[in-house]
Amino acid sequence: MNMKKFITFEGGECSGKTTIIAHVCKKLEELNIEYITTREPGGIRIAEDIRNIILDINNTDMTSECEALLYAASRMQHLSQRVIPAINDGKIVLCDRFLDSSIAYQGYARGLGIDKVLRANAFALDYLPGLTIFIDVLPEVALKRLSGRDKSDRLDLEAEDFHRRVYEGYQEVVKMYPERVVRIDGNNSLERVTEDCVNAVLKYLGL
Amino acid sequence: MNMKKFITFEGGECSGKTTIIAHVCKKLEELNIEYITTREPGGIRIAEDIRNIILDINNTDMTSECEALLYAASRMQHLSQRVIPAINDGKIVLCDRFLDSSIAYQGYARGLGIDKVLRANAFALDYLPGLTIFIDVLPEVALKRLSGRDKSDRLDLEAEDFHRRVYEGYQEVVKMYPERVVRIDGNNSLERVTEDCVNAVLKYLGL
Repeated sequence: MNMKKFITFEGGECSGKTTIIAHVCKKLEELNIEYITTREPGGIRIAEDIRNIILDINNTDMTSECEALLYAASRMQHLSQRVIPAINDGKIVLCDRFLDSSIAYQGYARGLGIDKVLRANAFALDYLPGLTIFIDVLPEVALKRLSGRDKSDRLDLEAEDFHRRVYEGYQEVVKMYPERVVRIDGNNSLERVTEDCVNAVLKYLGL
Repeated sequence: MNMKKFITFEGGECSGKTTIIAHVCKKLEELNIEYITTREPGGIRIAEDIRNIILDINNTDMTSECEALLYAASRMQHLSQRVIPAINDGKIVLCDRFLDSSIAYQGYARGLGIDKVLRANAFALDYLPGLTIFIDVLPEVALKRLSGRDKSDRLDLEAEDFHRRVYEGYQEVVKMYPERVVRIDGNNSLERVTEDCVNAVLKYLGL
């Protein structure tokens, strides 16, 4: 199907995605363009159940293959129940993280291999977004921002080194999908980064 | 890795697998051959959690792709935590259902397509069993046996037609993997079927 109206936002921890997406929404509202925002698992019950297994702090013995397949399963349910119906209604779908997160996190940073992530996500490859906004923040900047946060799920127990590898993983994503992924310099002030992202979305939509 | 000692048992509902596997065990014990028996999710906590989502009677809105990926995820965890360690210990692993069940049930009977099941199970294809005992029971015989049972998970809410399609799905499996799959006529008395299965396993193991 035509996924032109499917727009995803990618980046490491503390790349400002939440704020940025909120500003994109505001702009679309000003322009009277219908949209929804979502993120996996997106309130889809089955996808939430799956995600709870992945994030369970006790599940440190989960194999990388199992984890990649669970993300892929959750992704397909979310696509089917939330993304595709909105697109069929003619709406823009703004999605916080998608396949590229699996490539950067599981495929590269966790060392499963990008090829294996693509194999686990064979179904999702039929639903790649038309545009991906990648907010590119240097790992040392992200870690400085992260130190102010308080979270407790399993991902945050990882070492700083992990965040560095996520950064490198995203650089691979940019190389893999140069036409779909627009890289935004995320090291500037959040105000400036937000403006750049909003402009990139408007340009893509021809607005 | 060498999966020669990995033996799976396949067949529709009421094919007598449980009884048959018990008799194979008894024979291996008589011969002082070390083995384990298992079935997905096999008491592996993560795999059990995944299976609970699949079998949740409320999850009728689960997409076929999601379901196939969940089975694949559960499979990889079970392989990694239970099957592979036993094989590495030199034991025979007798497993009640494996990939072929996904091919017959999801791929064929539910109409997802065998190709899609194979894509979802790309990782598991590296761990195909050395021998698969397929107990081939005609659908009308299976349904007659099934009517005496009392179960309540989602699979048993399916129509009789579904059991017929599972039967056809298994015939496809036999065509796909003629070297690995040994077909046993399951329409005979359970005593006879059991004997045939035990003999097939012993022959495979060169005993």
